[in-house]
Amino acid sequence: MLLDFTYYNPTKIHFGKNSLEKLGDELSLYGKTVLLVYGKAAIKKNGLYDKVVAILEAAGKKVVELPGVMPNPTYAKMQEGCELVRAHDVSLILAVGGGSVIDCAKGISASAYCEEEPFAKYWLQYQPISNKTVPVASILTMAGTGSEMNGGSVITHEDMEIKAGRIFPPELYPRFSILNPKYTLTVPKYQMVSGVFDTMSHLMEQYFCGTDISTTDYLIEALLRSSIDNLRAALKNPDDYEARSNIMWNATMALNTVTGLSKTQDWQVHMIEHQLGAYTDCAHGMGLAAVSLPYYRCIAPFGLQKFARFAKEVWGISAESKSQEELAGAGIDALEAFCKECGVVTSLRELGATEEMLPKIAESSFILDGGYKKLTSGEILEILKQCF
Amino acid sequence: MLLDFTYYNPTKIHFGKNSLEKLGDELSLYGKTVLLVYGKAAIKKNGLYDKVVAILEAAGKKVVELPGVMPNPTYAKMQEGCELVRAHDVSLILAVGGGSVIDCAKGISASAYCEEEPFAKYWLQYQPISNKTVPVASILTMAGTGSEMNGGSVITHEDMEIKAGRIFPPELYPRFSILNPKYTLTVPKYQMVSGVFDTMSHLMEQYFCGTDISTTDYLIEALLRSSIDNLRAALKNPDDYEARSNIMWNATMALNTVTGLSKTQDWQVHMIEHQLGAYTDCAHGMGLAAVSLPYYRCIAPFGLQKFARFAKEVWGISAESKSQEELAGAGIDALEAFCKECGVVTSLRELGATEEMLPKIAESSFILDGGYKKLTSGEILEILKQCF
Repeated sequence: MLLDFTYYNPTKIHFGKNSLEKLGDELSLYGKTVLLVYGKAAIKKNGLYDKVVAILEAAGKKVVELPGVMPNPTYAKMQEGCELVRAHDVSLILAVGGGSVIDCAKGISASAYCEEEPFAKYWLQYQPISNKTVPVASILTMAGTGSEMNGGSVITHEDMEIKAGRIFPPELYPRFSILNPKYTLTVPKYQMVSGVFDTMSHLMEQYFCGTDISTTDYLIEALLRSSIDNLRAALKNPDDYEARSNIMWNATMALNTVTGLSKTQDWQVHMIEHQLGAYTDCAHGMGLAAVSLPYYRCIAPFGLQKFARFAKEVWGISAESKSQEELAGAGIDALEAFCKECGVVTSLRELGATEEMLPKIAESSFILDGGYKKLTSGEILEILKQCF
Repeated sequence: MLLDFTYYNPTKIHFGKNSLEKLGDELSLYGKTVLLVYGKAAIKKNGLYDKVVAILEAAGKKVVELPGVMPNPTYAKMQEGCELVRAHDVSLILAVGGGSVIDCAKGISASAYCEEEPFAKYWLQYQPISNKTVPVASILTMAGTGSEMNGGSVITHEDMEIKAGRIFPPELYPRFSILNPKYTLTVPKYQMVSGVFDTMSHLMEQYFCGTDISTTDYLIEALLRSSIDNLRAALKNPDDYEARSNIMWNATMALNTVTGLSKTQDWQVHMIEHQLGAYTDCAHGMGLAAVSLPYYRCIAPFGLQKFARFAKEVWGISAESKSQEELAGAGIDALEAFCKECGVVTSLRELGATEEMLPKIAESSFILDGGYKKLTSGEILEILKQCF
């Protein structure tokens, strides 16, 4: 059944080779002090840091910095940013980096003026945001998470051993995001592949649910095909601007909510991977791919028609002389073969998990019921063992 | 080559069976007086008028009315609305109807406080909007034009015999649009088919250009396939809510600018049809379909690769043992066969044109150069004769 929906996405996207030129005009809409949030050394090495700081200075801004945001950004790091916002009366939080940096910036925006404990209030209890927030914007350097055009923020609380995602309070959508595919040309192969599998996982989480075939499903199939074709092109020639552009825009489109409209959505793979990430700090896209294969084999019998369509429409597998079960299975096999072809790590052991972690990951994973089958913790453990 | 782009779409969409329930909350954001813009008798017959007026009254609004907006809304009708806006200090223009009604509402918004001659300034000279505008919102009752989620407004100046489209000043995007597929269940078959061909034409105008294959092309193919499949389903069973929903959302997605990003875009078919519309007042989608067939046969040799891809990806035609020319031709043949299957009128004579009109239409059509071949007026006349 098609669900009613509301769609509203206020993020302005500047995309392309010359998109950084738009930063100056955008900055004129905000106050004096900008908190620049970024990761480890990458943007200093490739010169982007210097360019951004020069534009900020030319715009007359006072720059406060929060460097060192790690993959799977922590609650502690976010709190550091909150202190800076309060101490300097920050008008705009500008994230320069990948999804982790943007997620951290959004977490700071939501939490800086929260008088209660923000992780409990916003990430665990999912309360609406009731305090003042600070506008967020982003300059994206890696494709995958889609954080540049949504209100999501995934934060890891180290003491609690919980990685929790908050989706999608309207206040946290970036006001603008600058997407220059050239910045992604230097992203290492491992990270590029991980990013594309993150995108593909977002699409599959939204696709595998419901009995209707809505326009949203057609759009998801298109973005999956574009992800597959363009990852192949970029692996063949890492300097292919067109392929990198498509990979970048696929990632944005895959999680700006357009591809979830009218659908219940699954997201169980992400729930499991979040806990895997809390224990191992593995590359998010790789973790998702590893969990996806046994998970989809587990749930396919409960959504056969859609899995058969996936085989046909996404992987171009002929339905001829195949039962629906065989066709559905062939689609998941094609996904697995594509993982191998692209060098995706699909073993949890190789991603840093130990056997002792598996029951803890299974026990602590949130269980959702938007997909074809609601799992038990026991079934999650079984899935984890299958990809260990 | 992929073009740089900026994407920003501030329209909030409420979609589904119960979407009218959102109207009350939305109204609370605007002042006292609402100009209700609508067409002929349809919304009075089906009860929508009474429901909307009841919600407006419950919200404490003063309602001013502009009824009788015609297909291909005229400059004179728009001026009538402008006078009402000025006389009653209107805070919100609420269009209830199809694309013509919404286009008229946007025209009023742009023109009411324009101190120069607005048609010349905004539709012919394409100047940025420099005067105060009035917020526009819509309740959509027919799928096709996509006007519910963009800033476009097509107005026919009867004295000048020009139908001109203004795209897409940010001020004119509806603040919110309510899309209930149920309202479209009573749209007559002829209008439904015309609407779907309008959608398909929007998609093809954006698709047939450039040598790159961007994510945008994949998305267009998906929306074309969804349009084809769901028009077939709705013709088979006019009460199919899922099919009508997909037809409605396809139309919105086909012209909310997502499907034009990174592309030069063609739009020559629309330029010719606009003049056809200025002379004949024919159903827009039918006129587009009629012109499309000879037009695409004329330009295909200049964009063979894309036309071959169209045959394969949109119509599922096998490339095996076909030259690229044959494959490209087979795609256009499939489009023509689909027109016949769905009862599309593809003869200009049947759409009300006379032989004497053809040179005038050809002479007065704007000529664009975003597609595979820039036409001459002579070539346009040839195309018109081929579909006469």
